[in-house]
Amino acid sequence: MNTPEHMTAVVQRYVDALNADDLDAVVALYADNATLEDPVGSTPLQGIEAIRAFYAQVVPMKIRLALQGEVRAVANEAAFAFSVTVSQQGHTSVISPIDHFRFDAAGKVVSMRAFFGPQNVKAG
Amino acid sequence: MNTPEHMTAVVQRYVDALNADDLDAVVALYADNATLEDPVGSTPLQGIEAIRAFYAQVVPMKIRLALQGEVRAVANEAAFAFSVTVSQQGHTSVISPIDHFRFDAAGKVVSMRAFFGPQNVKAG
Repeated sequence: MNTPEHMTAVVQRYVDALNADDLDAVVALYADNATLEDPVGSTPLQGIEAIRAFYAQVVPMKIRLALQGEVRAVANEAAFAFSVTVSQQGHTSVISPIDHFRFDAAGKVVSMRAFFGPQNVKAG
Repeated sequence: MNTPEHMTAVVQRYVDALNADDLDAVVALYADNATLEDPVGSTPLQGIEAIRAFYAQVVPMKIRLALQGEVRAVANEAAFAFSVTVSQQGHTSVISPIDHFRFDAAGKVVSMRAFFGPQNVKAG
């Protein structure tokens, strides 16, 4: 069983790694067999190479994450609300997802699902 | 497919029904075959009668819910952060869950999972 402390720390590392534009640090949080569904409803990506390719497109966008409230972590799963600020070509938008992480026995993220719809995207 | 508007409205009705201590209004949001896992990691309750029995214990506690931030709704699922204030025998505590609803084709909640651990419970 993963402790809430471990899972909360991984969420914080995820936020910090993306804010540092550190692709390797983000990918290191995931298990080799992890899946990623971002946003929920899209076809899940399968495996660490697909996940690396996903974040390799995200990191150059220099997105900035800020947690909104506490991380909720229990029984090998965590959920957390946050904002993502994206600036491109002079335009800024703010997306407000809730992400759901499931952890494996080694403490790695084995499933990530990002909940947000068009109504959660606003001009910054 | 459920619209984000419908799912967001159901979440608001859930909050309002619990704040009104209205057992029937809460249970009416659930499908007959729904499951409820509160907190995540506990054995899920199966079916509307078990769910009614669960809320029949909750409603007399006169809990008070307040949404924290936006409802995230997409592709037949919704996630939302909120606080629950519980006052008993002169003591107040505040729990801060994130709930995950999955909706069926009829627009009813067919799965509810509540994410919170002991670290998300504080003295009020």
